[in-house]
Amino acid sequence: MSTLATAVKRILVGRPQRSDRLSHQLLPKRIALPVFASDAMSSVAYAPEEIFLTLSIAGVASYAFSPWIGLAVVIVLLTVVTSYRQNVTAYPSGGGDYEVATVNLGKRAGLTVASALLVDYTLTVAVSISAAAANVGALVPYVAEHKVQFAVAAIVVLTAVNLRGVRESGVAFAIPTYAFMIGIATMIIWGLTRILLFGETVQAPSAGLELVAEGDALTGLALALLVLRSFTQGCAALTGVEAISNGVPAFRKPKSSNAAKTLLLLGGISVTMFMGLIWLAQLTGAKIAENPAVQFPGAPPGYVQQTLVAQLADAVFDDFRPGFFFVVVVTALILVLAANTAYNGFPVLGSILSQDRYLPRQLHTRGDRLAFSNGILVLAGVAILLVVGFQAEVTRLIALYTVGVFTSFTLSQFGMLRHWNRLLAGETDPAERSRMRRARVVNGFGAGMTGVVLIIVLITKFTRGAWIAIAAMGVFYLLMMAIQKHYDRVSAELVAGDGDGVLPSRNHAIVLVSTLHKPTLRAVAYARATRPDVLEAVTVNVDEADTKRLMRDWDKRKIPVALKVIESPYREITKPVLDYVRRIRGDNPRDVVTVFIPEYVVGHWWEQILHNQSALRLKGRLLFQPGVMVTSVPWQLASSERVTTRRPETPPGSTRRGYETPPAPLPKTSTTKAPTTKAPTTKSEVRR
Amino acid sequence: MSTLATAVKRILVGRPQRSDRLSHQLLPKRIALPVFASDAMSSVAYAPEEIFLTLSIAGVASYAFSPWIGLAVVIVLLTVVTSYRQNVTAYPSGGGDYEVATVNLGKRAGLTVASALLVDYTLTVAVSISAAAANVGALVPYVAEHKVQFAVAAIVVLTAVNLRGVRESGVAFAIPTYAFMIGIATMIIWGLTRILLFGETVQAPSAGLELVAEGDALTGLALALLVLRSFTQGCAALTGVEAISNGVPAFRKPKSSNAAKTLLLLGGISVTMFMGLIWLAQLTGAKIAENPAVQFPGAPPGYVQQTLVAQLADAVFDDFRPGFFFVVVVTALILVLAANTAYNGFPVLGSILSQDRYLPRQLHTRGDRLAFSNGILVLAGVAILLVVGFQAEVTRLIALYTVGVFTSFTLSQFGMLRHWNRLLAGETDPAERSRMRRARVVNGFGAGMTGVVLIIVLITKFTRGAWIAIAAMGVFYLLMMAIQKHYDRVSAELVAGDGDGVLPSRNHAIVLVSTLHKPTLRAVAYARATRPDVLEAVTVNVDEADTKRLMRDWDKRKIPVALKVIESPYREITKPVLDYVRRIRGDNPRDVVTVFIPEYVVGHWWEQILHNQSALRLKGRLLFQPGVMVTSVPWQLASSERVTTRRPETPPGSTRRGYETPPAPLPKTSTTKAPTTKAPTTKSEVRR
Repeated sequence: MSTLATAVKRILVGRPQRSDRLSHQLLPKRIALPVFASDAMSSVAYAPEEIFLTLSIAGVASYAFSPWIGLAVVIVLLTVVTSYRQNVTAYPSGGGDYEVATVNLGKRAGLTVASALLVDYTLTVAVSISAAAANVGALVPYVAEHKVQFAVAAIVVLTAVNLRGVRESGVAFAIPTYAFMIGIATMIIWGLTRILLFGETVQAPSAGLELVAEGDALTGLALALLVLRSFTQGCAALTGVEAISNGVPAFRKPKSSNAAKTLLLLGGISVTMFMGLIWLAQLTGAKIAENPAVQFPGAPPGYVQQTLVAQLADAVFDDFRPGFFFVVVVTALILVLAANTAYNGFPVLGSILSQDRYLPRQLHTRGDRLAFSNGILVLAGVAILLVVGFQAEVTRLIALYTVGVFTSFTLSQFGMLRHWNRLLAGETDPAERSRMRRARVVNGFGAGMTGVVLIIVLITKFTRGAWIAIAAMGVFYLLMMAIQKHYDRVSAELVAGDGDGVLPSRNHAIVLVSTLHKPTLRAVAYARATRPDVLEAVTVNVDEADTKRLMRDWDKRKIPVALKVIESPYREITKPVLDYVRRIRGDNPRDVVTVFIPEYVVGHWWEQILHNQSALRLKGRLLFQPGVMVTSVPWQLASSERVTTRRPETPPGSTRRGYETPPAPLPKTSTTKAPTTKAPTTKSEVRR
Repeated sequence: MSTLATAVKRILVGRPQRSDRLSHQLLPKRIALPVFASDAMSSVAYAPEEIFLTLSIAGVASYAFSPWIGLAVVIVLLTVVTSYRQNVTAYPSGGGDYEVATVNLGKRAGLTVASALLVDYTLTVAVSISAAAANVGALVPYVAEHKVQFAVAAIVVLTAVNLRGVRESGVAFAIPTYAFMIGIATMIIWGLTRILLFGETVQAPSAGLELVAEGDALTGLALALLVLRSFTQGCAALTGVEAISNGVPAFRKPKSSNAAKTLLLLGGISVTMFMGLIWLAQLTGAKIAENPAVQFPGAPPGYVQQTLVAQLADAVFDDFRPGFFFVVVVTALILVLAANTAYNGFPVLGSILSQDRYLPRQLHTRGDRLAFSNGILVLAGVAILLVVGFQAEVTRLIALYTVGVFTSFTLSQFGMLRHWNRLLAGETDPAERSRMRRARVVNGFGAGMTGVVLIIVLITKFTRGAWIAIAAMGVFYLLMMAIQKHYDRVSAELVAGDGDGVLPSRNHAIVLVSTLHKPTLRAVAYARATRPDVLEAVTVNVDEADTKRLMRDWDKRKIPVALKVIESPYREITKPVLDYVRRIRGDNPRDVVTVFIPEYVVGHWWEQILHNQSALRLKGRLLFQPGVMVTSVPWQLASSERVTTRRPETPPGSTRRGYETPPAPLPKTSTTKAPTTKAPTTKSEVRR
């Protein structure tokens, strides 16, 4: 327990840590389980329900299929868990499915997996929040009536929290996840005890209702398809299982082995909860209709269908209401947590993809809140669109969800198959070979199984929304391809050749002047210190009176630099300066023109509005002129001090990347080579 | 006619003009009238209606007051026109009421006028577009049913057009304004002819309806207040009269005299149309109720009240429908034009206010589309709020409108009174003195009259919305005071002292390096050319492999500058560099540190997203460090060329400032003083 206590203390106290001491903050299994498994476990909250809901279309008789469908899901789940135990051992770097697919199946497969994962993140938010709203609705009827608005509001709040920068802490994950596990387990055990041991009659609220088929009775192929669809809906229970394979670096050593153990633990818990819920649902006679208004002809007017978890909790804890409240609340809570997972997983995946130049480079370096913020906003925007477009209906959203999940499962397992084939080709040790062969069988089985599920998903759900997910994956795929192509083109354009690095023949310096004040004088002094070949001060005559006053002051102070006045008949600033600079360059194309711009630096955004606007625009335009260098000579106004004292911020996704973010210490520097022209004056220490 | 033809040709052909030839583009009276009077004339479209509407509260009997109320409005209007003829002569610079109030009554009065005008601009948009929607509703019932949505859509379209930059052309104003004048005049003349000359019975659609009082019959003070309120609503006819006093510089010479004549013309036309409409309304028995559902007990179900203009046109042109359509369409058109006036007037006022440092400086220089765009967006946003908040009800909006108008009228006339008092004190010529005395009487009368109207407005309408206008004026007033105070504080902070302009003792230069490519080599070469005292290249170790490759390449190319590696344990870039720079400065506080940042310049906004993000942020943060200069060494990628070939744009408000905006020619430059250190190499010509 002392490790947990230390972890709690560290999180509460938040002592800053150096990166070379990061291993101290790696996660023990008991914390890693909730951090990485909340997403997967939360799907237990809706997957069993979806099985019953889909079966209900064929009437209550088809509920008899539910244990068998549940069993099929469990088999797939255990297969996937077993397969991923191979993944975490073979690829402990945290690249997950993307890495496995890229290394073994090539760039295109990797990018397909990445696209699928990006789509999945938005769906995780939409599905989890919709399911959370449905569960809260069981407690608060007002929420049930305004499910969409509530879900959108929840996404907005979650987004705001993540934009402000929430530090993912192990404890924040551990408490709701363990509470959920305890809640569901207690409910199942107590329910089964009451029914099987005490022989009590435990009835779900919907037990007394007559459930009729939605249309004509289904037979033959139609019924088979419905059962298959019910199975694919139930496969939503597998979403999130792959999360651990992305998080191996955050585990304690031996990382892979611990990750594999946690994966097994997750699989065991999920399967138990999943089957327990299905069993309990059957025993309590819970009925979930796809279309309650039609399928429950005997229901009282205004009947609102509750989630399966809420119905079971209601039935099991009919004489102990706190139990009911507890189960429903922790279910909603873990679902919100699962949604939050996407907010944290996104930057991690973004960082990996940007390293491979599929996404903007700045996602790779840390502390770039701006880039992450944009990503979070896109994530939230798409999730809100999905929630509104599908009216927060979990069932309809899941039709989209499973495509992406099984695409990455399948590609990842096929990748592992290739991985073992490659290793086997170069391995001679018989023991090792037989181990690899066994692993290959596991992954081959996994690939086959997930591939079949993927095909079933495509057949049964393509027109029900899966096409949207596929289209979105296509968009991401093409976008990332385009970004990489752009980076490739630019870096080809920038390759240093032999003629580069030649010193400019002359330096023609211009100090831009608007008024004669401290920043101007500083700019002139600095410009003189850079010893250009030509130096002149330039002002644009926007206001006759102002210009005359400036010229008078200039003479009076005897500034040793000529002041040139550029006429601007239309009171513009940018264009006359640009034209003037262009003319200098035109006269002497081999010269460099340096433009010195005095700037005030202010501390408030509203001060920024009041200053420097024309300077900024001019700077922006000057950069487009070949051979023009732009030097900002800042003058810090008193108000600018507040900015320099601002504290650094914590980017999201820190915990699952294996480190917390403390404020950085003074960086160490190392010089690689003795300088040949001038010696640096600062002491430098070599670290590596 | 040749001048008009020339003007038309010039506008159509759009030949660029130099500013020293601007006088060619000044407006003849026949074009100036529509340009500056469309706002004032358009108010005729709603002012008479408002008189009847307000009176209707006391029942149809009170309609007997309408000619007298109309007459009172006419007296005020003619008084204001006469007073403003003095203004344009005394203040021909185009500063309008703001200038008159500032010069004669001081800064606070001027700022009050400016605040009132800013509020008025938003109300002009809201009122005019709402009235236009009501008139279009007479043609298209669908618009009448969705008045608010239509009005909002119209504002959005108008905003989009103005954001894209519409060139205000004289012809674009002339056609609808003259069409409106012709339409209304024809309607009045033809209606009077039919009734009075031919003895026909011309009946408005509402003539047959019984109009009852809204509550109990009003008597005594209550009735008097209602009549006063009806009068103040009718005074909406005066809005826009002051526009000409802002536009004197755009008139041909003799500017003041031509402006005064145009003002008189405007007054005559407005009064004629205004009284004609009231007379015609009485003859045709038109009835306008404030609350048609209650006050027309005999109306058929679903009765929709049309605007007065539409009712009159319906009655007069009952056997010639094109006439009806024409009048309604041109009325809607001139109202949209009046709304557009605000979009153009805003930047003009903004420019004047920014010159006095009440608004951001960049509003003063021209061609600053960004600043104007923000202003236009604020204008449109507030107008939409008003339209939605008041459900596009012209009557309720006018309650806000007249406060601002009469505030500026009154302050301006009081200012003129002071103006003449001051001049009289220094004048001895008896003829001149008696002319001034006469002028003083005119302005004194105007001040008294508009002051009384302002008080009546405040008494009758304060609780009906006028308080909102007053509050908004207060907000603008305080905001502009705060902005000026800020500018004053900054300029005090920046006053150049004796110790300024001292050369820095040493220059420590740093070239930031991420990869070894052309931009880096250029930056190193340029940095060497500036001959700093210390020069070093610095890279941040974000990725171990990348850094190693960079170091290898650096050695291979034998670059004569040392490369220093800064460790970044948390993969940040900004902070380690900032810390390093701070350390250099800490060691040698009198040194200057110059940071050279190689940048790629790209042509598309989406390329900007993919590049330079960390460089930009770093630049922003470095500027906050005292003694640090930041030099951008740009490298223009091929795609950047499209930006350099972009055409300049036309800012709004050009016509009413007296010039069109042609693309600027090459600026002329003038050097004011022989250089003492180094001679400029470009030829310069002295212009003034």
